[in-house]
Order: sequence, then C-alpha cells, then structure tokens
Amino acid sequence: MTAAATETPALFAFGIAATRLAASGAMIDCYFPAPLRAPAPDLVRVITAHFAPGVSAVTPSALQAFLTDVGTRAPDSTAVLEPYAELASATTALHAVVLAEDAAISHTAEAYLKLHLLSHRLALPNTLDLSNLFTHLPNVAWTSEGAIAVAELPAAQHRARAAGRHLEVHAVDKFPRMTNYVVPSGVRIADASRIRLGAYLGEGTTVMHEGFINFNAAALGPNMVEGRISQGVVVGAHSDLGGSASTMGTLSGGGNIRITLGEHCLIGANAGTGIPLGDRCTIEAGLYITAGSRVRLIDADGQPAGEVKARELAGASDLLFLRNGLTGQIECRTNRRAIELNALLHAND
Amino acid sequence: MTAAATETPALFAFGIAATRLAASGAMIDCYFPAPLRAPAPDLVRVITAHFAPGVSAVTPSALQAFLTDVGTRAPDSTAVLEPYAELASATTALHAVVLAEDAAISHTAEAYLKLHLLSHRLALPNTLDLSNLFTHLPNVAWTSEGAIAVAELPAAQHRARAAGRHLEVHAVDKFPRMTNYVVPSGVRIADASRIRLGAYLGEGTTVMHEGFINFNAAALGPNMVEGRISQGVVVGAHSDLGGSASTMGTLSGGGNIRITLGEHCLIGANAGTGIPLGDRCTIEAGLYITAGSRVRLIDADGQPAGEVKARELAGASDLLFLRNGLTGQIECRTNRRAIELNALLHAND
Amino acid sequence: MTAAATETPALFAFGIAATRLAASGAMIDCYFPAPLRAPAPDLVRVITAHFAPGVSAVTPSALQAFLTDVGTRAPDSTAVLEPYAELASATTALHAVVLAEDAAISHTAEAYLKLHLLSHRLALPNTLDLSNLFTHLPNVAWTSEGAIAVAELPAAQHRARAAGRHLEVHAVDKFPRMTNYVVPSGVRIADASRIRLGAYLGEGTTVMHEGFINFNAAALGPNMVEGRISQGVVVGAHSDLGGSASTMGTLSGGGNIRITLGEHCLIGANAGTGIPLGDRCTIEAGLYITAGSRVRLIDADGQPAGEVKARELAGASDLLFLRNGLTGQIECRTNRRAIELNALLHAND
Repeated sequence: MTAAATETPALFAFGIAATRLAASGAMIDCYFPAPLRAPAPDLVRVITAHFAPGVSAVTPSALQAFLTDVGTRAPDSTAVLEPYAELASATTALHAVVLAEDAAISHTAEAYLKLHLLSHRLALPNTLDLSNLFTHLPNVAWTSEGAIAVAELPAAQHRARAAGRHLEVHAVDKFPRMTNYVVPSGVRIADASRIRLGAYLGEGTTVMHEGFINFNAAALGPNMVEGRISQGVVVGAHSDLGGSASTMGTLSGGGNIRITLGEHCLIGANAGTGIPLGDRCTIEAGLYITAGSRVRLIDADGQPAGEVKARELAGASDLLFLRNGLTGQIECRTNRRAIELNALLHAND
Repeated sequence: MTAAATETPALFAFGIAATRLAASGAMIDCYFPAPLRAPAPDLVRVITAHFAPGVSAVTPSALQAFLTDVGTRAPDSTAVLEPYAELASATTALHAVVLAEDAAISHTAEAYLKLHLLSHRLALPNTLDLSNLFTHLPNVAWTSEGAIAVAELPAAQHRARAAGRHLEVHAVDKFPRMTNYVVPSGVRIADASRIRLGAYLGEGTTVMHEGFINFNAAALGPNMVEGRISQGVVVGAHSDLGGSASTMGTLSGGGNIRITLGEHCLIGANAGTGIPLGDRCTIEAGLYITAGSRVRLIDADGQPAGEVKARELAGASDLLFLRNGLTGQIECRTNRRAIELNALLHAND
Repeated sequence: MTAAATETPALFAFGIAATRLAASGAMIDCYFPAPLRAPAPDLVRVITAHFAPGVSAVTPSALQAFLTDVGTRAPDSTAVLEPYAELASATTALHAVVLAEDAAISHTAEAYLKLHLLSHRLALPNTLDLSNLFTHLPNVAWTSEGAIAVAELPAAQHRARAAGRHLEVHAVDKFPRMTNYVVPSGVRIADASRIRLGAYLGEGTTVMHEGFINFNAAALGPNMVEGRISQGVVVGAHSDLGGSASTMGTLSGGGNIRITLGEHCLIGANAGTGIPLGDRCTIEAGLYITAGSRVRLIDADGQPAGEVKARELAGASDLLFLRNGLTGQIECRTNRRAIELNALLHAND
C-alpha cells in the first residue's frame, strides 16, 4: 500500500464485478455495479495499491479494505464507488479488473467491463478496442436463476422439472440483455430482451417493442427507436426509426461503409438503409436503400437532376427518398417536404 | 351507509386495486381483479356509501365490509365482485377508484383503471378520455419481482447480485404487459411482451410472436395478428395482419387520419398501410401504402381507370393493392382475385 | 417382464415425461428429458415389458424399476436414458409414452413427444404425422411458475397479487418455447420467446433477436437467422435470413407450394419469398417475391431474356432477385454478382 505521490500512470478503466463461475470454473457472468473510466489520479493510486493489473479474484474483506482506503486517500471518489458497498458483503465471487490501456480483450471479465462502459455511457460505439470480444464471451444460458453454463443446463432442467420447479430459459447467447446490468437514466425500453449489454442509449431514448439495439451500437438520444440498430451503427439526436426499420451493420456492408444517421432523420416503418445518412434525411415507409440502389435525383424545382447509385449520396443531408408509385423509380428529392412527411410517418409511441 | 333509494347518480367506472408503492410513496402499479363499468344502481349505492369519489386508500377490513354489504344490499353484483374476495386478505396496499364520469385522467390509479377497462373489453379504443395518460403513468422497471421504481432499481440490482440472486428486468416502460393483469377469453398470445395493458383483444384473436398491439388499439376478433396494431388503430373481424405488417398510428398520421381496418382484410407480410381500409381489402406482401402514394386504378375489366393518391381511397372496400413487377407501379384493382390472394398470403399460424 | 428374445416389433418412439396436470385433471405440459426414436431391440423389449402402449401414468418407483431392468437387459441404452435418473425421485406426475408407429396424434403427451423429437433433432420437419396436433395441444398460460391452465389463471393472479408476489405470464399459447425443454448443441438463441417447441435448429444455427422459428420448421445449420422461418419451411446449410425476412408458410401458400431454401442462399433484410429457392439464391433487401410476382429475366450477358411469374422459377439455383431502382422492375439475374451482394447484405451478428 505504498503510494507514489506523483507520476502514477493513468488507468484506462477499472471495476469490481460480482461474478458467476460454471462448475468447470469458467467465468460466465460479470456484473459491475460501477465501472469507471479514467479514474482520478488519487483513486488510481489506491486501486493499484490494492489490485494487480488485469483480472484478479477479490474477497469481500479485501474489497472492504479497498473502500476504506478510498475514503481516506481518495475521498472525492467515495460517491462514485458507493454502489460497491453492497458487494462488500457479497456471497458470490468477486473479481477486480484493472486495465492500464484499451488493448485487445484477453479475458471474459475484460469483455464484460468494456460492454459495461458502453452501456454506462462511458464510451461511444466504435471507440473501444473490441478485438477478440467473441473469443472471450462464452455462450451462456440466461435463465430465471441467472447465468448457467450451456453444458450444465440439461441437468439443471432435469432437476427443476423433477421437483416441479419452473426454470425459464430466456436466451442462449454470448451477450446478456443490458437491463439486467444497467438502466441508463431517462430511457424507456418496452421489451428488454432486445437490448444487448454493450448498447449505448442516450438520455431521452425510447425503444419500442419492435426496436433493437445491438452491442457497440447507439441511439444518442433523444430518439424513438422502433427499428433495428445494428452493431457499429450510431443514430444521432432526434432521429427516429419506424417499426422494423433496418440499418445494415458495419461488419456486413460492402467494404468499409459504416452506417450512421445524423440528426433529425427518419427511416420509415419497414424501410431500411445501407448507406450512412447526414442530417434531416427521410426514407419513406417500405423503401430499402442499399448502397447499390440506382436513384433518380429530383431538384428543388421538381426537375430530374440525373441518376446516381445510392452510395454516392452517403453522408449527405436534407435528402428525401421515395419510390414513385406510378413509375416505380426510387427518387431522391431535396427535403422541402421532409417536415410534412416526418409528421406523416413519425413513429407513434 | 345511508342509501338514497332513488336518484342515485350513475358511476362511469369503479374498481379496487392491489397497488404497489415506491419507497417515495409514489404509486407504481395497480391491479384491478374486476374493474366495473357503469355498475348497477343498487351497487352504486353501496359503492358510494363505502368509498369516496376519486382514489382512496382502503384497508382489507374495509374491503371486507364493503363486500359483505354488497351481499346484503346488491346481491346481484356478488358474482362479478367475487375476484375481490382474495384481496380482503391482502398483504399489499389497496386503493379504491370511483369515477363519476369519463373525464381527463388525474391520478395513476385512474390511468390504470381505464387501461383495465380496455383490456377487460369494457371499452373500445378511442371511446375513453385518455387525456393526461402519459403524465400520470410513471416509468417503471418491470421485473421478476414485480414493479420497481426506476430510481430504486440500481440498489435492488446491487443487492440481488451480491446475494447471487437473479433479478430479471423485463421492461422499463410506462405500460406493463397486459397478460400480467388479464387474459381475456378465447385468445392466444405467443409472446406476451408485445401486448400492452390497454390493448383490446376480442374473442378468437391469435397474436403470433411478431404481432404487437399497443394500448388503446384493438383486434376485434377473430383475427390472426402477426403484424403491428398501433395506438388508436382498430382491426375488424376476420382481418389478418401478416408478419411485420405495419399500421400507422393515429397520433402520427398526417392530420386527422385514423387508421382502421374493416372486416375480411389482409395486410400481407412486410406490408403496411397509412390509410384506413374498408372491408375485403388486401395489400400484397411487401407493399407499403402511405396516404401520399400515387396509385394506378385498374377496373374490373383489367383496364386502366385513372390515377389517385392513396388517401382518396381511404375507407373504401373491395380493393386489392399490388405493385406490378414489370412496371413498378402501385396498382389498385377491384377485388375479384382477392380471395385467391388471401389464400396465398394468409398468415400461417 | 418376460422377454421374447426375437421378433420384437420395432417402436417408433418412446419417452417418459415429467407432466403437469390442471386442477381439472387435464394434462397441460410434458417434459421429456430424453425422447427416443426407434429404440434398439433389446431396449424395446424392456420398454414393452414395463409400459403399456400409448400413454400411461408412471410412479417414480416404476420408473426406477424400469431403469434398473435396462441396466441388466439393455445395458447399451443406459447412457442415453441417464437423464431419466433425475425423474426417479420426481415429486411431479410422470407419464410414459410408447408409440408403435408414427400415426395421427391422439393424446397431449403424444403431441409433446413428437415436438420433442423435432427439437432434439430426431426428426426433420415434414417427416412426422402431425395430424390432430392442434386438437391435442391445450391453450396454456406459460408463467414464471410454469404451465397454468387458462381457466385457473385469474385465481392464480388474484392470489399472487394479494400476497404481493409477482407472477409473470410469458405467453398464452398451445406451444411452449423450445429452450425450456431442450437447447440443442451448438446454437445461439438471442430471444428464446421466438422459438417454439418443435423447431429444428441444426448445429451452428444462430437466431438473432428478430429471428423466429415455428414448430415443424428448420434451420439445418449453420445459419444466421434474423428473419422468420414459418411452419413447414426448411432452410438449408449456409443460408441466411436478414432482419424481418419472411418465408411464407406451407399451410398458406396458394395450393401445394412448400417453401424451402437450399444452401448458400440469402434473403435480405425486410425481404421475403413465396416460392422455394434452390442453392445460391439471393433476394435483395426490401424485395418480396410472391408466387404471382411478374419478373424480368436478365441473362449472364445482362440482356433481357423474357418475363415469367416467380412461381416458374421455384426451386431453381443461382438466381439473384433485385428491383431496379430506375425502372421499378423486379429483375432476376444470373448470379455472377451474388457473392459480392451476399457480402453486402450479409446479416450482421
């Protein structure tokens, strides 16, 4: 517990998790009550005095000693660490994670800490090194009794049934649902099964039943989300996704196209986009724009202004995409009518 | 307990709820075992003798006294009030709601009572005064331990995790799911997370996994619902919504258009409508009709019969909407082939 | 317990279930830890010595006697029956089902056994006699306390609420969710509420949140499923369904068309098919092909090659379906570009 008063290297992130281990000893779940990014220097000194770099097992008494030390040596951090007080009497396993820098993931607990950083709004999508994420996230049965290793599930089910006890299996996935870890302030989530841990939901985000937000994807808020925000996609403020609206994921989009939506955009119900959009863009309900879609441009006077592939419009603002009902053409118009159409198509909450 | 034998003013609605209060004292959940609309005059006399107008706290013994009095003075109402017997031994808080008329909502318990009236089939959508509904419905974490105030959720989660106990957060929303309050007779609901309290499901309604019904929205039944019924939308008997079919909500539709579907309609999979439809209308799978869509009319002889905007067809019957695969035009045909198409597109259960 | 050493007739299927009965005595749920198809002859002899044909109630001690006898007389089957050991101390009801042949369903327990065979990968869709399935599957409330008869649900809800206990109703349906019965090896299921018991998920199948697989429907694996696999539909290896992609069910498709997808197909997001596809076929995001869709053929040189109705292309391979953005026509091209498009549209996990 020596403290080098100056020159303490900064930490990228820190957290202590209530963890669950499989019978095999494998870690299958980590819950960080209060993940920290770039903790203050005086707190860093206490952290590094108490915990080894990387991932290490922690006893409740060691956690209590750490918290006591924080109260003395880094009192400004007491409030932010208050959620850990509960864990000091934990009956479950505890692990500390001390990350000096944002490097490739090398442990399940590191993977969980990074997912927590995203959902706690401490990191935006596409800003963290998520290399090896899938490697270090085990596939887990998420049940009414918490995480169960997939290999141990059948026996657990047999026992429960024999005893007439109900064991609900909500999912079998590498990612748990976010709300079992954190509900960020100022959001509504109508069906929590559709938000993965690692999603970023900004203040004022409403996700309706048909909405979906993957890990490393964001609604910056405020937003009305009734469609799907794929991995890597970021949706700007005041942009809405209608029911079943689709955004193509960055992992899948022909080459290096990363989908983003600017502010005040609307993707109508059952519509979709394979190109990024700037601000104040609208895609009519039912129309899917892929990067390769051929599009007729219509200028502000309603006159034809040439043809392009949609990818040439990537990132532009004030576009209105429609399919003409009489010609079948995809038209891209300047956005004079966008406000009215927005009112027309606006997702109902 | 005096009874004015005649001239008792009628009541709009009445109910006694098992309620849950946050630590702050705020009401966060109300369960009415047997909401009543327009109770019989003799029952009204007993109600008004026992309970104040509006919302009031009730003790189990006061509830028991009320039920005893009903048995004596309004015996015809004993059966309908039978579900309340269980609450007379309740360990949870109880509140009575006595509404003289259908006025703007002024209390959480009133909001819940009106949502119950809809789901108990005691009121059709768009017939109740739902003013101030959102104001009086708090945002709540709906968990495996019931309603938890959003502000109290983190501490509850920390405690559960420290103890190794699983706390599932199903939703964070102003509206709970209907099935935790009432399952009306003769329905099937494949995924209950997609039906909000306040939805109206008529006898013979099947809602498949992709189906959704908002509050103040109805499937009058019988219906096969694999698509989304937005707030304010009413779907008539024998009309079906294919998978991901979309109906635009009344709050969003350009001006005052209220979407309804008549009887024997079909909206195909991945299709949608922004206009109300009469009877025996069909929209082909994958086609979205907005109010502004330009449509080619085709008469009963297969001849072109002019062009209209879809909104001009609002509410008409016997229409078949298709997009011609060779011209890209949206065509609206008389419905000679509708029966065959219906067979083709009909949602599979 | 006499054993006719030879000439024992084969059995179609066998299983012992932990069952739940309603207060009325009706069977409402059956869990088979280890359903068997075509058990080995020596095991058949033990089965038929212990259990009557059809469905019969079994005591734990009778189950134990059976297992003991298997150890002696059919020792090669001990391992496969090991999951039944837990039931030998069951406090719930037990029933044996012995089916000599695959005939029409005549009992709830038979229906459940056949659904188990499908989800345990012991039978492919469309290979079992499912006649009378709906007749013998009761509509059940699937709750956090397990199956509850619909008629008994209100009283259960009243009691739970009065006691301040939470009773979650996940569904009211004839089919339970598969994962509460079996999670086949090598799968991921992001939202278990969308996979019915009776679905067939092959090794390597990932079903994302928007994916859905009905009973008697299959993803043979490996597959990425973000769309809907309807009853009767089989999707071949390495074929993917984008978000909200739709496959028409066999019960609904104009006449006798049964939808299948071959290998290495892709149905893009918000797209759909009403015709079966061969191998290496792609449907562009947002495009719905119905059997009646008129399609322009484009040959390998990019030249027009005639017009057909989509049903004429049923089952063909190497087709790429697009809607031309400038003409609105549905085009079917030879598949030279399919690989690139596949990369473009490929569902993101």
